[in-house]
Amino acid sequence: MTEDTVFMAAAIKLARLGQHQTYKNPLVGAVLVVDDQIIGTGAHLVYGQQHAERQAIASVKDKTQLAKATLYVTLEPCHHTGKQPPCGELIVASGISKVVVAQVDPNPLVAGKGITFLKEHGVAVKTGVLTQEAEALNPFYNFYYRQQRPWITLKQAITLDGKLTQTKGTQTAITDQAVYDYVHRERANYQGILVGSETVLVDNPNLLTTLNLKHPPVRIVLDRRGRTLKQPTLKLFTASDVPVYIFTTQAKSAALPAHCHVFTASQWPIEAVVEKLAALGLQAIYVEGGAAIHQVFLQSGLWEDVITYVAPKIFGQGLTSFTTGTPKSISETLTIETVTKVGSDLRIHAKKGIACLQA
Amino acid sequence: MTEDTVFMAAAIKLARLGQHQTYKNPLVGAVLVVDDQIIGTGAHLVYGQQHAERQAIASVKDKTQLAKATLYVTLEPCHHTGKQPPCGELIVASGISKVVVAQVDPNPLVAGKGITFLKEHGVAVKTGVLTQEAEALNPFYNFYYRQQRPWITLKQAITLDGKLTQTKGTQTAITDQAVYDYVHRERANYQGILVGSETVLVDNPNLLTTLNLKHPPVRIVLDRRGRTLKQPTLKLFTASDVPVYIFTTQAKSAALPAHCHVFTASQWPIEAVVEKLAALGLQAIYVEGGAAIHQVFLQSGLWEDVITYVAPKIFGQGLTSFTTGTPKSISETLTIETVTKVGSDLRIHAKKGIACLQA
Repeated sequence: MTEDTVFMAAAIKLARLGQHQTYKNPLVGAVLVVDDQIIGTGAHLVYGQQHAERQAIASVKDKTQLAKATLYVTLEPCHHTGKQPPCGELIVASGISKVVVAQVDPNPLVAGKGITFLKEHGVAVKTGVLTQEAEALNPFYNFYYRQQRPWITLKQAITLDGKLTQTKGTQTAITDQAVYDYVHRERANYQGILVGSETVLVDNPNLLTTLNLKHPPVRIVLDRRGRTLKQPTLKLFTASDVPVYIFTTQAKSAALPAHCHVFTASQWPIEAVVEKLAALGLQAIYVEGGAAIHQVFLQSGLWEDVITYVAPKIFGQGLTSFTTGTPKSISETLTIETVTKVGSDLRIHAKKGIACLQA
Repeated sequence: MTEDTVFMAAAIKLARLGQHQTYKNPLVGAVLVVDDQIIGTGAHLVYGQQHAERQAIASVKDKTQLAKATLYVTLEPCHHTGKQPPCGELIVASGISKVVVAQVDPNPLVAGKGITFLKEHGVAVKTGVLTQEAEALNPFYNFYYRQQRPWITLKQAITLDGKLTQTKGTQTAITDQAVYDYVHRERANYQGILVGSETVLVDNPNLLTTLNLKHPPVRIVLDRRGRTLKQPTLKLFTASDVPVYIFTTQAKSAALPAHCHVFTASQWPIEAVVEKLAALGLQAIYVEGGAAIHQVFLQSGLWEDVITYVAPKIFGQGLTSFTTGTPKSISETLTIETVTKVGSDLRIHAKKGIACLQA
């Protein structure tokens, strides 16, 4: 590794400290280096609070050192005023003369403007150091700004013979407690948890995460016929006041609590739902099914990966994964990313498409 | 480890050298030890040839040493004349005074008689050393003699949504070449490869193993209606003269080659098929499907494990694993033994029942 990659790797490690805390903001880490020594460190730790660069600069007591310092930062410094003043101005004002950036910010509010600003103010900027590793910090953020829609993960729990339940319309325990716990933590990686009304009515889930988040994922229900609207005792409505978004053709019932937002239209093709979720700023959605919902996403192409929990059970008959009455067959090829034993069950994470071999 | 387990572990290693070569005979290894030194080694390497004990004794040049030697053998020495003379008599004749046995032979021809014979002739016999490890050498052999029926493995290849094909009646490539190669080697672990007539007619498989075996697994077809009987150009009949057993209600057609054995009865409930295969001496059967055949075995309880190859694909619609028109649902719980990446696909080996925790 060159010195540049050593220091950028340190910045990437710092960035990870903010996991589950930065909400819609990306994870960002920064280190300040003078004569191959790290003299300051920073990370964006909490949504709405200091950015990594500002923290790193603040961490240096003797500000006279900054003039000879190089700033390593995993993401392009911002040049707009959001919840925090722009970092570009602070960098210039602090006298830092060189900045190494791993990844250009795909957010159109920044998108190269931060780097241009620094260069215009006499700061030397180097890019392309550990770019891939830095991008891996924020896959959902990057995808959202590049594709203008949320990253969609389809999550299912199946038996060894691909069954979701033993009998349609009844809840069947597929996986064990360990998977239940794992999924409740995994939900915290997303900004929305989406299910169909059938799942709500049959399983009565709370769709919450067990992580204590300031900005927990919102709960999204596709309920064309409005079957959930008149059932205010569902856990979705009673277990928490984390927002619930219901996409339906029906009007909101007065019985529903204030945290329930009903989006009513004459129809909700899946493309329109996803567009609305994008407009609401959701960068990543965890789609927990059921089979009909998964198939709708699959057939629209609006999905990026599939997380499959496999229980070592065989049911023979029963409702089958991704299968609905629609006699449309497709063939999608994925690439297995990871396989993890979770309790007595298995977690298979597969991404859309065939992986390219790295050079 | 005690000295006993050290030497028995060596005998177990030797036993494995015979893998795929001993056919219906068990893998057996033996070492002869004098003053904590191994002075002779043997293994049963080829069906019909020398047993491990005889090989070990033959390997010692100075036969006068045998009087003070301890024989460590993974399986109880035989006391019957089969393709080889009984080992018990040789042991006694050679003057060996102590024998350590890992596993009592479940074959009723031996089953304790070998140990009794040795004791009656003044040989000290110790049992119970690495019994579990020695039994793991011959799971199918042990099962066959204890249960009086073949060990039955159900093997399937499915997509991430539990589909076997896109359209019933047509062949769909599920897994990649790596799995194809793996399965063709895996077949060599069994003494019979079983499929339904639908699989034969749709996929036209040769059901051979790529390992060069003196006793390759026989090929078994459940073909109630006799649909394969008049199709002598099927690969099953043309690709090799490894025996084919067809269970059917129809008579053998003259068009079929001599290596094809047709078992005709007015009906063939699965229990009767398994009983016939047991009578034919088959210790282990690899059932490659399709779905209806798998379900019949599942519902009969006549199965021990399931090997599932999972391809990272999604079909949406299609024929589903273990599902037939019969609306009978069951719930079997298995335990995942191993998970292996095979090329871009996954191999999940799960055994019937919930594993007991070892003390």
